[in-house]
Amino acid sequence: MAPLSLENINPGVLEAQFAVHGEIPQRAEELGAELLQSSDPMKEFGFTYILRNNLGNPQEMGQEPITFARQIAALAEYPQLSTLVKFPDDVVKRSAELVKANGGSIGAYSSPQGISLIREHVAEFLGERDGVPADPESIYLTAGAAVGIKLMIQLLVASKEDGIMIPVPHYPLYSAVLSLQKAREVEYRLSEEKGWHPSLESLGKSIQDSAAAGTRTRAMIVTSPGNPVGNVLGLEAMNEIISFCASHNLVLMADEVYQSNIANPILKDFISFKRALLNHPDEHIRTRVPLVSFHSISKGQIGECGRRGGFFEIVNFPKDVVKQISKLVAIDDAPVQGQIGVDVLVRPPRPGESSYDLWYQETTRIQQKMNDNAKKLVESFKRLPGISSTEAEGAMYLYPKVELPQRALEAAKKAGKSPDTFYCLELLGKAGICVVPGSGFRQADHSFHFRTTFLGQHTDEFVRRFTKFHKEFIAEYQD
Amino acid sequence: MAPLSLENINPGVLEAQFAVHGEIPQRAEELGAELLQSSDPMKEFGFTYILRNNLGNPQEMGQEPITFARQIAALAEYPQLSTLVKFPDDVVKRSAELVKANGGSIGAYSSPQGISLIREHVAEFLGERDGVPADPESIYLTAGAAVGIKLMIQLLVASKEDGIMIPVPHYPLYSAVLSLQKAREVEYRLSEEKGWHPSLESLGKSIQDSAAAGTRTRAMIVTSPGNPVGNVLGLEAMNEIISFCASHNLVLMADEVYQSNIANPILKDFISFKRALLNHPDEHIRTRVPLVSFHSISKGQIGECGRRGGFFEIVNFPKDVVKQISKLVAIDDAPVQGQIGVDVLVRPPRPGESSYDLWYQETTRIQQKMNDNAKKLVESFKRLPGISSTEAEGAMYLYPKVELPQRALEAAKKAGKSPDTFYCLELLGKAGICVVPGSGFRQADHSFHFRTTFLGQHTDEFVRRFTKFHKEFIAEYQD
Repeated sequence: MAPLSLENINPGVLEAQFAVHGEIPQRAEELGAELLQSSDPMKEFGFTYILRNNLGNPQEMGQEPITFARQIAALAEYPQLSTLVKFPDDVVKRSAELVKANGGSIGAYSSPQGISLIREHVAEFLGERDGVPADPESIYLTAGAAVGIKLMIQLLVASKEDGIMIPVPHYPLYSAVLSLQKAREVEYRLSEEKGWHPSLESLGKSIQDSAAAGTRTRAMIVTSPGNPVGNVLGLEAMNEIISFCASHNLVLMADEVYQSNIANPILKDFISFKRALLNHPDEHIRTRVPLVSFHSISKGQIGECGRRGGFFEIVNFPKDVVKQISKLVAIDDAPVQGQIGVDVLVRPPRPGESSYDLWYQETTRIQQKMNDNAKKLVESFKRLPGISSTEAEGAMYLYPKVELPQRALEAAKKAGKSPDTFYCLELLGKAGICVVPGSGFRQADHSFHFRTTFLGQHTDEFVRRFTKFHKEFIAEYQD
Repeated sequence: MAPLSLENINPGVLEAQFAVHGEIPQRAEELGAELLQSSDPMKEFGFTYILRNNLGNPQEMGQEPITFARQIAALAEYPQLSTLVKFPDDVVKRSAELVKANGGSIGAYSSPQGISLIREHVAEFLGERDGVPADPESIYLTAGAAVGIKLMIQLLVASKEDGIMIPVPHYPLYSAVLSLQKAREVEYRLSEEKGWHPSLESLGKSIQDSAAAGTRTRAMIVTSPGNPVGNVLGLEAMNEIISFCASHNLVLMADEVYQSNIANPILKDFISFKRALLNHPDEHIRTRVPLVSFHSISKGQIGECGRRGGFFEIVNFPKDVVKQISKLVAIDDAPVQGQIGVDVLVRPPRPGESSYDLWYQETTRIQQKMNDNAKKLVESFKRLPGISSTEAEGAMYLYPKVELPQRALEAAKKAGKSPDTFYCLELLGKAGICVVPGSGFRQADHSFHFRTTFLGQHTDEFVRRFTKFHKEFIAEYQD
């Protein structure tokens, strides 16, 4: 037998799927290379570059970095700069504090839980956000939210009968990590008709079905603002979810990385699950449900994906379990520049500080751009036959539904692709638009979606290319 | 039943141990806080600060960062700097190239396998090192070597009967990750008498024993230069190990993160396992053994632990297995600044380039300091009763053996500690020296060791404190 083959490696790895880097983005990579080699790409392909709307990767889409964040980072790398260049005084002070807090150099490993000064700042941020004090000892700095999510699933899954509830549709990291941990998926449905809120009924049904299959359900994952669906949960729904977790002994895992990407805070603002839990109408529940909430510097307006920074906060975790988390974080050091990014995220300049005006302009402009982009996309979808989309309440994604003609379904079958993959491959090949098919996030049977981001500078081009493509596609396959 | 308790979390997490952040370093943290609060620490404790020789964390021990690395990183954070400050021209050129290679901003996610320009540079470095061309497509940039090691163990372990060979003593990351993956440990002994080389006999015995226990051994982990033992494997031993892997269908995992920390390259230089494999005397073996080698920017002379950068290279891996690795790296993005650190590691300034002289001075001084420190420590151990240590051939650690008097063993038992833990706790409390007891790395029965780094500026102070402590300890417990 060969020392290495598909027959003797981890079957969980074979099962794991991660569509945001799956077939379509891989084809986009190849196509990008072909475009570069073409002497006349416009003639050969009909476009000269690919619109990469498949990934929440703002700076790849031309979003400018926040100056304040980058100045602090540059000074932390090379503190001598402060004698050579005049930086704003708040930048100089902050950067020096942060370097000192890591033992005088960002080149040292931080303490495993993360730099304690930064955890104190995170606690202050959470205290202001939720109206209740937070404890720096309950906060863990991580290399992005994904590392925390993996760690928590690894902690919770004790046997192959253990399962974790994930929404349909969901960000595919969750199901990929469940495959790797050989844990069971317990799916619950988000209702497109109800603005992508989960229904109590579907939650109850999913836990009953899983219990009948011998599954011990350990936790429930909720994403709000939602990915891929871009909704924002309201307090009533959140309270129901919390009560549900209490009745079924579940740990609540709240992916809240899009908490500052809110389209219209007056219409519908972000409420954290911690705030909802600690103010739950049923007093007994407040201390009963263990909650872990994840945040990240990759999203929001800062959009520093390459830096790998984030944190999670735990609430209502027993002390002996907390000790086990300390062991896990000790073998997973978070990059110090990612931690510094977290500091900037939770402690932006205040009015009156030197960097405030520029920071305010930059972050406002970025969020405004996202809002404008989202509106343009939703309006363009509305004008097209067979496409519908909910409004974006938050996050950076839309998840429109596409009605595919019967002949398109047949063509997909012939090509050996799922219908939504077929549609997205055509969209990529004919219009140079890269989005992720709904099957990568899962969707209700016989319904087809795709996820697109609304980031960056190319939305008008997206609308132009997409409109032309979709009309032609429908014309070609109309029954 | 409670939603979260030690009874229902992952038993692999409960089992995992990671001594370099274990009991002694945790006690050192507390002691550090007590020192800060004391009005007269010298009187109260006998010392004013703790010598943190427990962790290979050079910059925490006062090692200066390499200027070239930090200038490139600072410019990548804030490219406008090049118009404000005069940097060396090679720094400006390199930094701009690297930013461009990540789509124009280090704030974007890189491609999952790592920035391709940097992988090309890694391939050039490996080609020069090994005398055979390397393929950028076989190189994966990671957030430090640990992430790669975890990924590879996750890939290889298919069932709970699967085991991986680890040396005794070993860097405890390996056993911690095996616990988390619920894989079996297949221990093999390094012989202290033979300069910490493994004996063929012990390898054979360990694989026989494991087969008898129903274990399917999948891979063998080797560390050279060694951690915790600081030896460097010779070609003969390496060839034996490779033949052994070939006979037993094992994947060879070579942890080579200390490859540039060599005490005396004329006496004993680093040879990579790739070089040894591709030149193995038995031609059939050259293509037969799958090899993965790990490297890191946390060690060497650059010592940028906080940045989280490293890479692994795979050799003789089947194509379909390689595809599975691509999936795994897609859910584990490496920080871009860590990748930029890798570029600096593999592509230092060349003679004639603007930054060469300073880079040469800095790296030479750092390695010289480590060599001097190691010699001082070994000599001081030689002067003391009941302590012996091999010379440091490489890496940044010594692993001296301590003969403990019978009465010390009894005192340890009374305190409920292993004898080496007892000794190290006394060393910490009485001399303010933090090292890791041998039980954290494992050791032959009835022998006791500790691991100390030889980094930084405080070696004379270490020798002074340690000598006094050890003499007093022996005097106190002498039979």
